[in-house]
Order: sequence, then C-alpha cells, then structure tokens
Amino acid sequence: MDLRMAALNLHKSKRGKIEMRSKVKIEERYDLSLAYSPGVAEPCREISRDPSLAYEYTNKGNTVAVITDGTAVLGLGNIGPEAALPVMEGKALLFKEFADIDAFPLCLNTQKEEEIVETIARLAPSFAGINLEDISAPRCFSIEEKLDARLKIPVFHDDQHGTAVIVLAGLLNALRVVGKKIEEVKIVVNGAGAAGQAITRLLYKAGARRLRICDLPGILYPNLEGIDPHQRRLAELTNAEGEQGDLSFALQGADVLIGVSTGHIVTGEMVKAMAPRAIIFAMANPDPEIDPAEAKLNGAAIVGTGRSDQPNQINNLLGFPGIFRGALDVRAKKISEGMMMAAARAIAGLIKPEELSVDYVVPSPFDRRVVPVVALAVGVQALKEGLAGLALSVEELKAGLVERFGPWE
Amino acid sequence: MDLRMAALNLHKSKRGKIEMRSKVKIEERYDLSLAYSPGVAEPCREISRDPSLAYEYTNKGNTVAVITDGTAVLGLGNIGPEAALPVMEGKALLFKEFADIDAFPLCLNTQKEEEIVETIARLAPSFAGINLEDISAPRCFSIEEKLDARLKIPVFHDDQHGTAVIVLAGLLNALRVVGKKIEEVKIVVNGAGAAGQAITRLLYKAGARRLRICDLPGILYPNLEGIDPHQRRLAELTNAEGEQGDLSFALQGADVLIGVSTGHIVTGEMVKAMAPRAIIFAMANPDPEIDPAEAKLNGAAIVGTGRSDQPNQINNLLGFPGIFRGALDVRAKKISEGMMMAAARAIAGLIKPEELSVDYVVPSPFDRRVVPVVALAVGVQALKEGLAGLALSVEELKAGLVERFGPWE
Repeated sequence: MDLRMAALNLHKSKRGKIEMRSKVKIEERYDLSLAYSPGVAEPCREISRDPSLAYEYTNKGNTVAVITDGTAVLGLGNIGPEAALPVMEGKALLFKEFADIDAFPLCLNTQKEEEIVETIARLAPSFAGINLEDISAPRCFSIEEKLDARLKIPVFHDDQHGTAVIVLAGLLNALRVVGKKIEEVKIVVNGAGAAGQAITRLLYKAGARRLRICDLPGILYPNLEGIDPHQRRLAELTNAEGEQGDLSFALQGADVLIGVSTGHIVTGEMVKAMAPRAIIFAMANPDPEIDPAEAKLNGAAIVGTGRSDQPNQINNLLGFPGIFRGALDVRAKKISEGMMMAAARAIAGLIKPEELSVDYVVPSPFDRRVVPVVALAVGVQALKEGLAGLALSVEELKAGLVERFGPWE
Repeated sequence: MDLRMAALNLHKSKRGKIEMRSKVKIEERYDLSLAYSPGVAEPCREISRDPSLAYEYTNKGNTVAVITDGTAVLGLGNIGPEAALPVMEGKALLFKEFADIDAFPLCLNTQKEEEIVETIARLAPSFAGINLEDISAPRCFSIEEKLDARLKIPVFHDDQHGTAVIVLAGLLNALRVVGKKIEEVKIVVNGAGAAGQAITRLLYKAGARRLRICDLPGILYPNLEGIDPHQRRLAELTNAEGEQGDLSFALQGADVLIGVSTGHIVTGEMVKAMAPRAIIFAMANPDPEIDPAEAKLNGAAIVGTGRSDQPNQINNLLGFPGIFRGALDVRAKKISEGMMMAAARAIAGLIKPEELSVDYVVPSPFDRRVVPVVALAVGVQALKEGLAGLALSVEELKAGLVERFGPWE
C-alpha cells in the first residue's frame, strides 16, 4: 500500500486523530456534586474574583488553539476550513504527543482579516495560547500583530516564526561547520512570503547584516512596485541602497541561500557562483529549490531541506512544541523575538561541537531532549524579559519539565 | 471536608476536568508522514472535493462546542467568560462520560448578541453540533434562532430545551400516576425566562392547552407592558383571553405547577388551593419554590425538584447526552421539537407502568439505559422528519449504539 492510501486509511479508520478525555470520573452522585452542580460554583466564584485563577482551576493553562482560515494549507493553497481540519488535527496531535499540550483545532469560516481577528479575540478566554496556522500572507502579518496587541496570551504564527527559529538554529550550526560568522556572511532568502519574511527578520535580529530577500521580481528594494508594506519595510531594512537584480545575480558570492519558494528554481550554475563552502537550505515542499546532490556537486558544503529522507531536515516540529511548552509553563504574555532566538540557540546547542558535521546541523525531532531543552530556554528568556505571568525560579521551571518529560541530561 | 472545599480541591489538583488525547501514536518518521506531512494532504484533498467527508476523515462528527458568554452561569449570574469555564468544562466532561462525545468548552469574550452569533457561525466548521449554555434571556432566544437558520448542524440551548425535555418526561409519568391527561390539566409555569418559555412551548406541542405562564407581574397576558416579544408570543399562545392575576390566583384549581423561578415563593396555602392530586415540579436552585415536605403536607401528590437529595430529580443530565448522541449519529441538521418530544417520551418510557410511583417518575441519570434509549429515539425521529444527513437504517443506528454502550435491554 502506498503512502497516500495508508494516510487515507489511517484517517478514516480512526475518524480523525484527536479526542477529548476526562480527567475526572463520574460514577455516582457525589462525583457529580463536586465536578458539576453544586460544587462547580466554588471555582467559578474564585475565578470571578480573580480571572487568573482560571489557570489553577481549569485546563486553560495547558490549552492552545490551533487556528486557521484555510487559505494556505500545506502546498494545497486556499482549500477552505473543512479541508484544513486534518492538518489542524495533525498539529494538535503533535502538540499533545511531543509537548503534552492540549491543543484544539479551530477552522474558521471566514477569510476576512478583521473578522478573523475579532473571532479569535472573542474566543481567547478558554486558551493560554494561540497557534495561527496556514493563513496566507500578507494577511497573516496583520492578523498576528493585531491579536498580539489585544491579547495577553502568546499568539504565534508557526509558518512564520517556527520556520525562522529552525532555520536560525540550523544556520548557526552550519556556520560553525564551515567556519564563518553570521555577522559577516552574505545571506539570500528566496521567497518573500510569510516564512521568508520572518526568517529575514530573525536572522537580522541574530546579527546578520548582509541580507537580500528575493521573490519573483528579483531582489526586493524599497521602491519596487507591487510589494506590500511588510515587504517594503524588509527591503528598507536589508537593501536601503536599492540594489537590483534577479536571484542569479543575488546569489553571486553569497555564503548562504535560504529557499522558501518553489521546487527546481535554483540551478547548478547559480550554486557554482556562490562563495566557497556555501550553505543551502532548500526548503520548498515536496521538491526542494535544488536537488541536494546537484547542489553538492556544484560546490555547496552543506545542504538542508524540508524532507525527512535527506540529511539536515529543517522541521518545524523541532520548535513549536518546546516553544509553547516553555511559554505556557511561565504563563508568558507573548513569544518575543528574544524567546525565539533562545529557542534557536537551544536547538543548535543540542549538537555538541565534536558531533557537528555537514550532514548533521539540526537534531532529530525524535531526540527526546529537544522539547524540554527548548522549553527551558524559552521559559528562562520570558522570565528575563519580564514577559512571564508566573513568578517562578529557573529551578522550579526545570523541575516541572523534568516531572513532565523525565530527566534529559 | 465540606463539599465546597472538596470541589475546590478537585478542580485545583487536576487543573480542570478535561484534556486532549491522541488517537494516533507518533513514534517514528513514518507515523509522522501518515498523520502529518506529507500524508495528511490526502484527506485534505478529499474533503476539499466534498466537505461532508470531514465526518469521515476527522473527529468533527463526534465534536460538540459547549459555548457560553458567561451571562447566566448557574445561580451566579453574569460572571464573565473565565469564571464560566469550570461549568463549561464540567458540561464537556459530562458529554464525554455519559455519551462518549468530544465536547470542547468555549467561553466568549463578548456579550453582544450579534457578535456572539457571528463568532459561533465562524467557528462552526470544526464541530458537528453547538450546545449553548448559560446565556441570559431573552438574548439566548434570538442567538439560537439566528444560528439555527444559518448553520446546518444542531444548535441546542440546553438551559431551555434540555430542561423542557426532562420536565415533559417527568410530567408524562406523573400524570400517569395521578390518572390525568395532559390535554385536560391546568398547568402553571412560574418563571418566564429561558427555561420557563421553552417548557411552556414544549408542553403546548405535547398537547397541553390549559397553560398559564407567570412571572413577577403575575400571569402573562398579551397586552401586559414590559414583556419582551418572546414572552408576548407565549402570552398570546396560552392566554389569548387576557386573564390577569397573581401566581396565587393562577394556582387556584391548577393540576400542575412547574417552578423555574426562585426559592420559597410558593406557600402551603397556594398548594392547598390547587386541584386534588396536584403535581409540583419546584426546580429553583439551590432552594425549591416550596419545600417538598410542606407541599406534600398541603395536598400535593407528586413533588419533583432539581435536588439530588430528593425523589424525582428533574436533571438535565437525563437529556443532553442522549439527545446529542442521537443527533450526531444520524448527522442531524437540527434538533427539532419532534426530536425533543421523542427524547421526553423515551425518558418517560424507561420506567415501566408497574414501577411508577409518586416518588419515581424520572429515571436516575446513572441508569445506563438512558443515553442509548434517548439517542435511539432522537435519531429515529430525525430520520423520520428528514433531518438526518446520513442515510441510515434504524437497525444500523441501534447497532452503533450497542457497539458504543453495550446492550441495554
């Protein structure tokens, strides 16, 4: 049986991938009187006095909404809310399996930016965090910005920031392998959508200064017509001087190519024109921007892709479970760029210097150290930045993670 | 330890009462490739071709949203969304424990009617049914009506219809015990809020014609000032002749009193003035409209309350789990009055004529026959009325229930 049929069968035989589960048994009237009427009035009264007690008396503190409008689902595009549900259930499943987080899939029946913002803001009280998923650019930016300003819980668009975190983690290690510095290398990001923009911003935050971001019209520059305000701001940040040219031109002498575009658009010739010991993360799905073997043949030192059958898989699963675990454990009010950087460094740091190689710059998502180590780093950073809603010591945070995941060191 | 402390401890020690659970294990890359990328694209593609396939490939078909705006929570009133969460989690817990339904609590951060309707309509795609809970009257009526018109899944305000179903079930049996007919008896409903109105409508639908609905100003009549349009319509239905008077007047010669008002407002004198072999359901919480012992002392033949420490507990738990189970199993598009009547008759029918007594007119919610019997009756009625979205025979429906709950006959 091929993978497609196996996937259909799995989904059909189980009728989806997640369900609810009771933490309390109801076997007699006394159980009812505690968990429901009349006893339930007590936690209600407590929370009405102090809404933050919802974290103590309900499951809110461990609950994340996985929300989409179905506009940019996997490589399938705008397939609508019902058809997006298997992906959102899958994401919720990964939250539970990897981070012991209770995530619930919500597929919205609107694609209007303002309605999406209003809807999410209104349903936020049941949740300790919002994971936005598969919402098309540039709407995803303003939706996230507006929610971030309105809500006091983390709002995280994984397609943007999750990807950026893993790219940064992989790049930090890849640069170590080839002996270059992030402040000095020339980096080309190809694809100026949600992921490409978030990657560019996070790399800048991490010290990269020789950045070019490209899309169909070539290198983005401030006066380029037809780009949206978000792209323009990035063009100003990375290319104030207004350099123009196509991807091929941009790649000349570049040390790093980050591809979040489409398959087969980078040629061997382009790779040859890059600087020696070039790093290429070709993350288009299912086919990378260039076949890894061809990239290597033309001089690339390190190649990463989104594929699980190739070395250096740049996989979001390395990020969001630990990032949210850490954020929830300290009741973070948001997930800052500092917390994302901490996550990236923690992921990179899991591979010891002597283990690093051209084929091993990111850990496996099945490495059981990943989630607790990322969670710890993210939680510690939130505490440092004053973004935590819970007064907790690093030792307490760590003890909680050890209790949940077992010791990992 | 008293009940209040025990309830607080239970909620705190478990951090709420429900959580998510995976139906699929993710232990290696192959598991990921089926449940998530790239395999998950297959069910997505299928559902984008035919949205109803979401019932086959996801958990949608077994998922119900328990939604409130926090305006009328238990006896606590308008305590807001966070404070309502323990009740909504409790309801979700009961859905799971009693009917194996995956219910998720959503507490909305708005109390504006139009915003509530829009929000629920937008988040509907993840769900096969909507249970509205603890929304104050008269907003609850228009919210439900508007959603019912817009959505093709059942929308059910349990405080209204769930209560009405159990009252009708209890009344059918009580009338059998005292040897009276619903078409002939004079029934006074005291309390013209959400529950009182729904009870009145369902009793009318079941054949009751001598109905009076009372509230603070006494008997409702069409020209009474200060009542809302829903109350006026009920006044026209039950009291076109415009009879006026207070509760005490209304109860003179009445065979049945249904109280959904406040404690201790019915006196022994009022009960004495009722017809012989009177039936009183005094359901105010936590204190009934009249103490059952006092009511009996003054001639009432049968007394029911909302209390678990008294005979004849009129408990919503007898209704909503089976009603939703039946509706989901046939993919009902709505829950009609016919389906509610079928549920009431099924509940009443669980007590054999020879078992009926003044102290036993409704079954215990822990009677394990209740949910499958109600579900079967509701599903069969939906099929009869052409409201089912699934072509199913009664035998198939029943077989599914036996598989889920075990044989009950």
